[in-house]
Amino acid sequence: MQQLGDRPLDWIDGGVSMVDQTRLPDRYEVMRIESVPDMVAAIRRLSVRGAPAIGVAGALGVALAIQAHGTSGPDFDRAIRSLREARPTAVNLARMVDRVAPLAGQGLDQVLAEALAIRDEEIAASVSMGEYGADLVTELVSERATARAMTICNTGGLATIERGTALAVIQTLHERGTLAEALALETRPLLQGARLTAWELARMGAPHRLLVDSAANFMLARRQADVVLTGADRVAANGDTANKIGTFSLALGARYAGVPFIVVAPESTVDMDTPGGDAIPIEDRDATEVVSVRDRATAPANTDAANPAFDITPSDLITAIVTDRRVVRLDRGDSLRSVPLGHLRRRAAESPSQ
Amino acid sequence: MQQLGDRPLDWIDGGVSMVDQTRLPDRYEVMRIESVPDMVAAIRRLSVRGAPAIGVAGALGVALAIQAHGTSGPDFDRAIRSLREARPTAVNLARMVDRVAPLAGQGLDQVLAEALAIRDEEIAASVSMGEYGADLVTELVSERATARAMTICNTGGLATIERGTALAVIQTLHERGTLAEALALETRPLLQGARLTAWELARMGAPHRLLVDSAANFMLARRQADVVLTGADRVAANGDTANKIGTFSLALGARYAGVPFIVVAPESTVDMDTPGGDAIPIEDRDATEVVSVRDRATAPANTDAANPAFDITPSDLITAIVTDRRVVRLDRGDSLRSVPLGHLRRRAAESPSQ
Repeated sequence: MQQLGDRPLDWIDGGVSMVDQTRLPDRYEVMRIESVPDMVAAIRRLSVRGAPAIGVAGALGVALAIQAHGTSGPDFDRAIRSLREARPTAVNLARMVDRVAPLAGQGLDQVLAEALAIRDEEIAASVSMGEYGADLVTELVSERATARAMTICNTGGLATIERGTALAVIQTLHERGTLAEALALETRPLLQGARLTAWELARMGAPHRLLVDSAANFMLARRQADVVLTGADRVAANGDTANKIGTFSLALGARYAGVPFIVVAPESTVDMDTPGGDAIPIEDRDATEVVSVRDRATAPANTDAANPAFDITPSDLITAIVTDRRVVRLDRGDSLRSVPLGHLRRRAAESPSQ
Repeated sequence: MQQLGDRPLDWIDGGVSMVDQTRLPDRYEVMRIESVPDMVAAIRRLSVRGAPAIGVAGALGVALAIQAHGTSGPDFDRAIRSLREARPTAVNLARMVDRVAPLAGQGLDQVLAEALAIRDEEIAASVSMGEYGADLVTELVSERATARAMTICNTGGLATIERGTALAVIQTLHERGTLAEALALETRPLLQGARLTAWELARMGAPHRLLVDSAANFMLARRQADVVLTGADRVAANGDTANKIGTFSLALGARYAGVPFIVVAPESTVDMDTPGGDAIPIEDRDATEVVSVRDRATAPANTDAANPAFDITPSDLITAIVTDRRVVRLDRGDSLRSVPLGHLRRRAAESPSQ
């Protein structure tokens, strides 16, 4: 079996190799993508998912488009459009396709270099978010030596390359010895929390428990967690945040319980061109995801379902937005417009061998 | 296959016959219970579930205890104790065992007559709750001709004999032609909404869609439902309500969206001896329910889980409590102490053939 090391997604020998996230945790399987239609299909069925990761996948898709269609023309344009429209909610996909595609005229090597630069930026961003976020959690949870952190969906290395967004903060807390427990929501319908986050937490040796999504707010009300950490698919200019369905509900529970609710996302997910949450398109996915679990039917045949894949958390329910460059304390009246970008942080406690 | 007609639970030929709810919707299977340990096991694994139904099951269990142990003695006492402690949260179980057990000295026939009287009371109560509740919904949703009603768990005839609690209201709205749509939460971990409520809604021909639990609050915020209707496992004297895990979260979403949140439960579920929600024991169930769905693993092997089976909704998040005897408008300052019991209602629109 091919192993990709710490990178779940990479350009190898003229194509994209990536972990098929739909197979985890049963199998760690590397799949090969050599055409744009295959990449679009992989993005749509969530073989690759997570805002930063699909941004990199889209950028690498531009290289695949050049290999098939050259650097311009109607077929090339159609391929680029299909990439940027594969999924609507995460801003990273369209943004990274749009960043790389204009370089096509300079040739494949230039496009690939830019796509891999995006990947490296996301790797560095994940480290920096972990540092900023862990400091903030320690500050907000100062009455306890170690924090119990609740999170939804999967925001680890699988979603984002290297250590992720919200899960980067949890990993950093764990490495610093300041994580008491991670509480992972299973995240129906596609169980990214149960399948992927539990798998990543086990790999990093962090203490954790799983819970059904609907138990989260009661556990917050009973003070079973000190902080909620989530990723984002798009952060609008006013701080409204699109993320996995269930995030908005969790923010309501955190507010009721007085628990800090922190959004962790790289600057590449912040979209100042989207004024607020109402302007973010929400992907409605197929009913089959709701009426079955991992191919096992859960409801009577022909049951119809509603399946919004994301929701919008209004900025007034968010304590802070942590990016790779800054901490925006919405709870103190700060905003994305008022807080300037700071420096990118590296790991505070690099071990000598690394 | 034995059919039980409209009664999912009955005393037939010296034992209890009941629908095994764990098999639905795949199979409608009637199981036979002829001993107290078998009844306790059936209650624990949720073959019979729902507060009113396990009250009747407990009462019939007393008859099984007499058949095995006579009408008194240490074995009889032990059997009675095992019945009343089979599950802790729903008040109906202990209450109905306590109502029937003191009649043991009068013999099996008297005990059975009382148990069947409880069953008949619950049947009448479900009809009455449907009428009171449907009137209230129509009053609260007066700006629309038909109501879109969201509900959690299963509160239909399977749970409660005859037409149920919250689902009785939905059925009554449907029969009156005033139901636009029922939105059923799937209700993880045991999927009573997907497996049982969707099955009952299909049987009654009511338009409905299923959703994952974590989508409910976003759909409320987007005004996709006009009212939330839930059952209860125990209503405390101050109106705090224990119900299926997820109910509290749903109440937060309803409050945020300004959607009425109505608890529907018979007087047999109201427990004036429990002052408030903090005094209600919450059943913690096994982690295996969380890390699998219908026997299919969802998480890596050995993943630990938290699994509170119920939660507490504080009375200040509840618009009204509808019982078989009254409507208590908590939103208007009414309380369970201030509103007297009214009359039991019968179906407003009996068709001539019924």
